[in-house]
Amino acid sequence: MITSATFDKADFTPKALICVDQSGIIDRVISATDSDYQSVKQAAINQDTLRIVHPGNYLLPGFTDLHIHAPQWPQAGLALDKPLNEWLNTYTFPLEAKFKDLAYAKKVYKSLIKELLANGTTTGLFFGSLDTKANLVLAKICAEYGQRAFIGRVNMDNPKQTPDYYRDSSAAQGLLETEKFIQEMFDLQKQTSAQLTPVITPRFVPSCTPETLKGLGQLAKKYDLPIQSHCSESIWEDGFAQENFQKRDAQVLDSFGLLTDKAVMAHGTLLNDSDLKLFSNRKTALAHCPISNVYFGNQVAPIKKAHEQRVKVGLGTDISGGFSPSIYKNMQQAIMSSQILKDQTNLNSRLTASNAFYLATIGGAEALHVKTGQIKPGYQADLQIVSDSFKEVSSNRSQDIFERLIYHTNKENILQVYVSGKLVHNNLGEKNGK
Amino acid sequence: MITSATFDKADFTPKALICVDQSGIIDRVISATDSDYQSVKQAAINQDTLRIVHPGNYLLPGFTDLHIHAPQWPQAGLALDKPLNEWLNTYTFPLEAKFKDLAYAKKVYKSLIKELLANGTTTGLFFGSLDTKANLVLAKICAEYGQRAFIGRVNMDNPKQTPDYYRDSSAAQGLLETEKFIQEMFDLQKQTSAQLTPVITPRFVPSCTPETLKGLGQLAKKYDLPIQSHCSESIWEDGFAQENFQKRDAQVLDSFGLLTDKAVMAHGTLLNDSDLKLFSNRKTALAHCPISNVYFGNQVAPIKKAHEQRVKVGLGTDISGGFSPSIYKNMQQAIMSSQILKDQTNLNSRLTASNAFYLATIGGAEALHVKTGQIKPGYQADLQIVSDSFKEVSSNRSQDIFERLIYHTNKENILQVYVSGKLVHNNLGEKNGK
Ligand SMILES: [Zn+2]
Ligand SMILES: [Zn+2]
Repeated sequence: MITSATFDKADFTPKALICVDQSGIIDRVISATDSDYQSVKQAAINQDTLRIVHPGNYLLPGFTDLHIHAPQWPQAGLALDKPLNEWLNTYTFPLEAKFKDLAYAKKVYKSLIKELLANGTTTGLFFGSLDTKANLVLAKICAEYGQRAFIGRVNMDNPKQTPDYYRDSSAAQGLLETEKFIQEMFDLQKQTSAQLTPVITPRFVPSCTPETLKGLGQLAKKYDLPIQSHCSESIWEDGFAQENFQKRDAQVLDSFGLLTDKAVMAHGTLLNDSDLKLFSNRKTALAHCPISNVYFGNQVAPIKKAHEQRVKVGLGTDISGGFSPSIYKNMQQAIMSSQILKDQTNLNSRLTASNAFYLATIGGAEALHVKTGQIKPGYQADLQIVSDSFKEVSSNRSQDIFERLIYHTNKENILQVYVSGKLVHNNLGEKNGK
Repeated sequence: MITSATFDKADFTPKALICVDQSGIIDRVISATDSDYQSVKQAAINQDTLRIVHPGNYLLPGFTDLHIHAPQWPQAGLALDKPLNEWLNTYTFPLEAKFKDLAYAKKVYKSLIKELLANGTTTGLFFGSLDTKANLVLAKICAEYGQRAFIGRVNMDNPKQTPDYYRDSSAAQGLLETEKFIQEMFDLQKQTSAQLTPVITPRFVPSCTPETLKGLGQLAKKYDLPIQSHCSESIWEDGFAQENFQKRDAQVLDSFGLLTDKAVMAHGTLLNDSDLKLFSNRKTALAHCPISNVYFGNQVAPIKKAHEQRVKVGLGTDISGGFSPSIYKNMQQAIMSSQILKDQTNLNSRLTASNAFYLATIGGAEALHVKTGQIKPGYQADLQIVSDSFKEVSSNRSQDIFERLIYHTNKENILQVYVSGKLVHNNLGEKNGK
């Protein structure tokens, strides 16, 4: 098994026994040198509860994806050579508006959730659409497939920055609808006992009126809920805050109570030192979406610096500003973009494979206050079994195996995925069964 | 079928019949509106030669990978956070030296060639190692598996820049060995009738003495052979040429007759305008390796500018400076890096999906003077059948399908690969057979 030990180091433990209790929590991790290794193993064999990870396969924690626009899944990879404005108005808003059609929503969301689980993502933080019913369809599918999900009903009501056909008719109507969504999510959670959490979700500062931003800050407080939005994603967004509020984008969000220790802000490519300090003080997390940032971020996000300034950081795919549903590909791009940033600035911005793995696991989990992302007692048994496609030709040093898994894992190498001990994706043929 | 029409445009033709002759050359491409479409189709059915590409799957040309260090395959993805010097001396040279062991060479090269074919790469330009026998093992495996291959025996003899254990003992010995390799490749080609070509391969200017560079230029001329090397990959390499030859790296290569219209130079991240002009005048091609460049290139290569200045450009994986054997992933990174370059410089450096597809197909083929990379009469039937994983949830616009294939094709979506009409990779289960 491999689990992140610190920001700089992944721990490799061969032949560990991972004991999972009835509620899906890791109870013990027993290493081969522990005195009761054999007796616990034998007991598991006797009870037919032993599951073996075969040689050349490895057990890793599941990943947390901190930024997914669920209704944008059908356009992942499309029109990425368009400017943000055209991309939003010609492609994205019309697509999101289609989710009033619940049959369409069901088809798309099933495809998305299957894909995320197949890629090793066990926890997801989702932007839904404006449509409460469609968001509940998403929640039900997550419950059905076993995806741990944080889901937001999007609020956007600024007539200057949103189209007629896809906008809350007023701040009051949007807030009412959002409160209804929160209640329905609580009900659904009780019915299904699934791990579903509603999230306060102003799209971003430009698309919301101050009344909406204020009301959402209050709702977050009233129900003690997570918050998600975008912050300083682009030069344009940064400029909008300055022009309309005479403040930094982060300060605007903060002034409405939207930078809390349960808030996750996407991108932050243009955050400056004082913004980072504000994030750090508020314990607000950053969702780093390196693939998306290439297209829409105008700059590489200063992730190493943010971490050094004690800002919580995790990774996001940003479907569909980013084209890939894979956190592996986003780890790779996080490393690569940080390297390009180093070439540009000569600053020590470079992220290693271990850093990226930390962000994908511990970083994302801490942002959402879920005990996941580590293979340790007391943590959720959110796990993935991954095969090393190089085992025949390459070295057996643990650091080499780790780096190969980060750089070469495709969906096809992810053999099984578990959320809270429950099998949610199975890619093993009969030949390899059990 | 989809084939590149121009640098800026990919052509999409539904329901075409591709007629391939006995020698593996595309004879005709018949569209559904052509008068003999039905009769030719019926004739193929009668002769049991009709192969159907099912709805949701698409026929694309195979790719050309212009830069692969075959013996570095075992370390793809490893130690990429090391500086170039340490990476070469601690990891790469010791690994390449191991290929004296022909059993090891056989195991690694089989793994590599299977992987390249499975990723849709039908033509490869390879650096081998110093060992002639190991290079011939690679050539035989390419012949056996059907990979069209250009293979070079590496020359490196500068004692200041190469280790004792992995160096030609003198320029003369290296040149003799290279000539022997050329002859053996010609023999092998005759025996197997495989598409194998020896390539003149000075590692790069710093690792060769002037005598070797001169001798290799003469060998290239004597046998009219392709040439491959590296050019202006890094600040260090650029500086070496200036310091030791008081010339640009490209000028040094040119002065030894190594910039020909059959030469392919890797990287060129730091080529300046006069270098590009020299490449253009000599009709020398550039192998753009965007993933590798992130780690070792010190800068994003100015590919759009190179193309505009009429330099031939194709794509390379640079296994293992780049971690991925997939030309798809390199197309994605070429687009992403060009976008970051645009953010940095405000120049119009951006490559589109169509541009990247052109480089992977027509660009690579022209660099090597092979009639491949296009689905057109007279061209090699180098083809891949690829499935669109989004067909259930996304649009059917041809441009959308094309962009999805560029951004989402993993090995698992590549169903079949053909080289010169011969099936070289089959990823279809029984269910989908024929
Ligand atoms: Zn977003
Ligand atoms: Zn190279």
